[in-house]
Amino acid sequence: MPELLTLYTAKVCPFAHRVELALAEANVEYQSYQIDLTNKPIWYASKVNPVGKIPAIAYGGPRVPADQPSPQSFKISESLVLTEFVAEVYADANLIPKDPVQRAKVRFFMDAAANKFEPLFFGYTFTGSVDQAGLIKGLEEFQTLLPKEGYAVGEWSIADAVVTPFVGRLFLALENDLGRYPVGEGPKTLEIIKTDPKLERIRKYMDDVTSRESFMSTFDKPPQPSSVNIGYSYTTNRSSRT
Amino acid sequence: MPELLTLYTAKVCPFAHRVELALAEANVEYQSYQIDLTNKPIWYASKVNPVGKIPAIAYGGPRVPADQPSPQSFKISESLVLTEFVAEVYADANLIPKDPVQRAKVRFFMDAAANKFEPLFFGYTFTGSVDQAGLIKGLEEFQTLLPKEGYAVGEWSIADAVVTPFVGRLFLALENDLGRYPVGEGPKTLEIIKTDPKLERIRKYMDDVTSRESFMSTFDKPPQPSSVNIGYSYTTNRSSRT
Repeated sequence: MPELLTLYTAKVCPFAHRVELALAEANVEYQSYQIDLTNKPIWYASKVNPVGKIPAIAYGGPRVPADQPSPQSFKISESLVLTEFVAEVYADANLIPKDPVQRAKVRFFMDAAANKFEPLFFGYTFTGSVDQAGLIKGLEEFQTLLPKEGYAVGEWSIADAVVTPFVGRLFLALENDLGRYPVGEGPKTLEIIKTDPKLERIRKYMDDVTSRESFMSTFDKPPQPSSVNIGYSYTTNRSSRT
Repeated sequence: MPELLTLYTAKVCPFAHRVELALAEANVEYQSYQIDLTNKPIWYASKVNPVGKIPAIAYGGPRVPADQPSPQSFKISESLVLTEFVAEVYADANLIPKDPVQRAKVRFFMDAAANKFEPLFFGYTFTGSVDQAGLIKGLEEFQTLLPKEGYAVGEWSIADAVVTPFVGRLFLALENDLGRYPVGEGPKTLEIIKTDPKLERIRKYMDDVTSRESFMSTFDKPPQPSSVNIGYSYTTNRSSRT
């Protein structure tokens, strides 16, 4: 019987979503526990992650319920570390290529996803530090990292798991006009992304990653767009956001 | 004959130093090329790293001189990606353990070295955003990541290569009283680090990593402390630094 893996996660969190994607692609059974980010259980910091953040994984040890973590399991956090861990624990799933050169490409892309794509998303939809032109330019630059076709390094890999949650949330925010930009700009920005010839390659890529089964099974589109929660303190009352 | 590996580096750069340490520990032959950071060769951005930064590696392809990089070699950058690459290309050197749990610990430590230790160093010696008390508290916190004895995960690994350049440069800066703190504070801070009972574990660790042959063979202590260059725009004229 394989070791028990428990993922501590939250639906709204893009960082946790990275690990959910890797696990979905590995197609393995694991225990998932939703942490209420507004009211974290007391045992979480003391028994799983001292800094209290999600995602985190408990691996191995006795087969215990997620809310009674064993001191004998291995606890680990940080989403990029976790995606690599999932890829290595379930090596048969080939979530990362075996060749060192290809693996370096995966890690370089993961770094760019975390340090380039992620700030674009947060800057445009959350802090306002990136405007529409900056977002489009950023996407165009990020696009240069992609090969002519396929995923980040050709076949799907954990490199894609790292960027996909932010692609999904970017689309969702724009569709619902949620973000620190002028009212009505979200759908217009989405239209640019969906039609601008300069963005052809990244558009194809973003379509590819968000149409995978692993994405669709792990990303809940909310039934009521007006109350959409993309993981941050958005409200639909725009006046309170500036 | 093994593939040719060329490292583009600069003595003063702590990020490049990480990769030099990994290569020294692997004990392999490689081609090293010093990039003059104040006057980078024109071919560097076009033929090696488009963003112009060091460190970078060219790997494989024809055996060419470093200043005539071949389009057929694989080019890669980002110091953490490079240390993992070195560990995987020279797998026999065991620069990273084989067990997934141990590997996750290595990557978690690498992340902490980059996101916790590195900002402590820069904050105290370079930007002034961290004061003496903050540095000492930060070291005490970082210390909790270490096992009871040995290196970051027991045996030496690339986790140690990531933090060591900043340990060496912190000591050098303090010894020479170089940093954005009051004149004379550097040696006093060093004295605290060398004697404070609360820092016993990290002191031992910092001694361990800086007394390894790989460190001594890759870190040049300058002959004249007054003109020490730790990789940044320090001068000994303190009045020009604020």
